[in-house]
Amino acid sequence: MELDFVAWLRERLPAHPRLRLGVGDDAALIDAATNGSDSIVTTTDLLIDGVHFQSEEHTPERIGRKALAVNLSDLAAMAARPTAAVVSLALPRDGACGLSPQELAASLLEGMLPLAEQFDCPIAGGDTNLGPGPLVVSITALGCPTPLGVLRRDGAKPGDQLLVTGSLGGSLIAKHLDFDPRIEEALLLHERYGLTAGMDITDGLSIDLARLATASGVGAIVNEVALPLADVAREIAKQSGRSPLEHALHDGEDFELLFTAPPNEAKRLVAEQPIACGVTLIGEITAEPKLLLRDAANAVKNLEPCGYEHR
Amino acid sequence: MELDFVAWLRERLPAHPRLRLGVGDDAALIDAATNGSDSIVTTTDLLIDGVHFQSEEHTPERIGRKALAVNLSDLAAMAARPTAAVVSLALPRDGACGLSPQELAASLLEGMLPLAEQFDCPIAGGDTNLGPGPLVVSITALGCPTPLGVLRRDGAKPGDQLLVTGSLGGSLIAKHLDFDPRIEEALLLHERYGLTAGMDITDGLSIDLARLATASGVGAIVNEVALPLADVAREIAKQSGRSPLEHALHDGEDFELLFTAPPNEAKRLVAEQPIACGVTLIGEITAEPKLLLRDAANAVKNLEPCGYEHR
Repeated sequence: MELDFVAWLRERLPAHPRLRLGVGDDAALIDAATNGSDSIVTTTDLLIDGVHFQSEEHTPERIGRKALAVNLSDLAAMAARPTAAVVSLALPRDGACGLSPQELAASLLEGMLPLAEQFDCPIAGGDTNLGPGPLVVSITALGCPTPLGVLRRDGAKPGDQLLVTGSLGGSLIAKHLDFDPRIEEALLLHERYGLTAGMDITDGLSIDLARLATASGVGAIVNEVALPLADVAREIAKQSGRSPLEHALHDGEDFELLFTAPPNEAKRLVAEQPIACGVTLIGEITAEPKLLLRDAANAVKNLEPCGYEHR
Repeated sequence: MELDFVAWLRERLPAHPRLRLGVGDDAALIDAATNGSDSIVTTTDLLIDGVHFQSEEHTPERIGRKALAVNLSDLAAMAARPTAAVVSLALPRDGACGLSPQELAASLLEGMLPLAEQFDCPIAGGDTNLGPGPLVVSITALGCPTPLGVLRRDGAKPGDQLLVTGSLGGSLIAKHLDFDPRIEEALLLHERYGLTAGMDITDGLSIDLARLATASGVGAIVNEVALPLADVAREIAKQSGRSPLEHALHDGEDFELLFTAPPNEAKRLVAEQPIACGVTLIGEITAEPKLLLRDAANAVKNLEPCGYEHR
C-alpha cells in the first residue's frame, strides 16, 4: 500500500519550517534543534514476522541484523553517515525462534551489534513490549548529511545516466537477510561524481525507478542487456518460471543503490569503477515521464512498475 | 520485563563517544552529527493492540493520539522541546477498528496531527506495513535540550524533595488515552526551579520512583497523606477492592512528572504553584537506598515497587 498512502500523506501532512524534506524520500531531513545550522536525516523501518522474515527459519541474530541493515540502507540512499539508532520490539509473550521473550530480545540485539559497530551506528536506546505476537522489530536510524547535502530522489534530469551498484534479482533466496548496506559506497559516489538523484532498491528496480522518476518529474529508458543479473537470479529462474531478467527488474529487497549522474560523470564513474561491488550503467533519464525497456534487438516497450510490495 | 532487560542492555551496549546518555533514562541523548556542539534527545515507544489500547473499544484517532503522546511524555521527562517524530505502523491486513488498513493508517495519523501541532512536533515521515495483525504503532520522537541540559533520572541527592505534577491513580479508566504530555510544565519547572532529577510516571509511582532512586543511587520516603489522589482513583477503588492510595501508588500510565528539587527550591515551587495542573510535594530523597512509605499515623513501612508493567 506504500505508493497510495505516501501520496495521501504528502497531501495531508502540514509543511513545517523544520522539515527540510518530509515524506516521499528514503528518509526525512529535519533541522537540528538548537541552532538551525545542522540537520538530521531520520528514517524508520518496521519488520514483521511472516512478512519480512520468518522466525521459524531465520535466527534472531539474522533478523536483528536485517532490521538494522534496512534502516542503514535508507541512510545510504540519502548518502548520509549513520549517527545512532533506536530499537522498539513487540515480543510475543510465548517467545519465538525457540527462545523466551527476553532471550529473543537479547539475540536480536546481538545480531545488530556487529553491524552497528561496522557502520559506527551506536544503538542508543529502545523500547521492549510483550504482546500476543507476531514479533515486530521497529528501528529508527539517524544520520548526518555530508557537506554536499543529502542525495534526494527528485534531482534526476533528462539526459542523466541511470546506474546501479552490485547485481540485481533473487535477493529473497538469502541476500535480503545478510546484505551489506551501501553506506560507504553512497558516500564515495556522491562525493566524487556529482550524483543528481538516488535511492535504494527495496521493492524492485521497476517500482523503485518509477518512484525516482515520479519524484523527479522525468521518465527513464532501461537497457535490458545492460542489467547486472545476480547469480541467484539465474538460479531462482530455473524454478520460478520467470526469466532472470524479470527477477532483476521486479524482485524486491536488492538493497542496491539506484542513482543518476550527468553523462560525463557517469562515463568517468563506470570507467574508474571505484567501489568493490561494481557500478553498472543501465539506462538513461528521459524528459517524457514514461518508463521504457529496450531489448537486445533494440525494440522498445513499456516497463510496468510491478515490484514486490510486502503484503 | 523492562527492568531486567534494561539492566542487561546497559551492560551489553557498548559505550560510544556520540552517546552522551544511553539506555536507562526516558530518552537517549545523542551528539548531533556534523559539528558536535548540539545534541538530540531521542525516544521511542511502541504500542500494541490489546496491550496498550483496545481497537475494539477505542477509536483510531485516540489510539494515534496516545501513541504520539507517550513519546512526547518521554521528551517532557527529559525537559526537552519536541523537534519532530516519525511513525511506523504494522497494520492488520484485514484492518481494525472497522476500517481498511489504509483508512486505519489515515485515522491514526489524524489523531496524531492536532497533538503534533499543539506541541510543535511535525510528523516527518514513517513506514507502513501490512501483516497478520495485531495493530502496532511505533513512534520515535526527537527533541532538543534547553540550554540547561536535559533532566536526567540520576541526579537526585539525599535531602532533595520529591514532587509530582497533577494527580495520580485510575488512569486506565480513560486518561491514559487522552492525557496531555507535560512538555510545557517540564520546561518551565526545569528552567525556574533547578530540578535535580526527573522522569514521567508510566508504569506507576512506586516502580518509577524505584527507577529514579536506583539511577541516582539513593532512597526515598513518600508521605501517604500527601499523595494527590485523582478523582478516578477514588471511583475505581469502589469496584476494585483496592484503596485509592494503592491506585495512586501502583497504577500505570499516569504520565505525570516525578521529579526532585533542593529543599528551598521545592518550597518556593509549591508556594508559587506555577503550572495549572498543580505540583505536590510527596516526600523526600534519602541516603539509604530503600523506598519507604510514611502513613497518616507516622508509621513507616517498606514501599514495594509493584507498578503496572504491560504484559
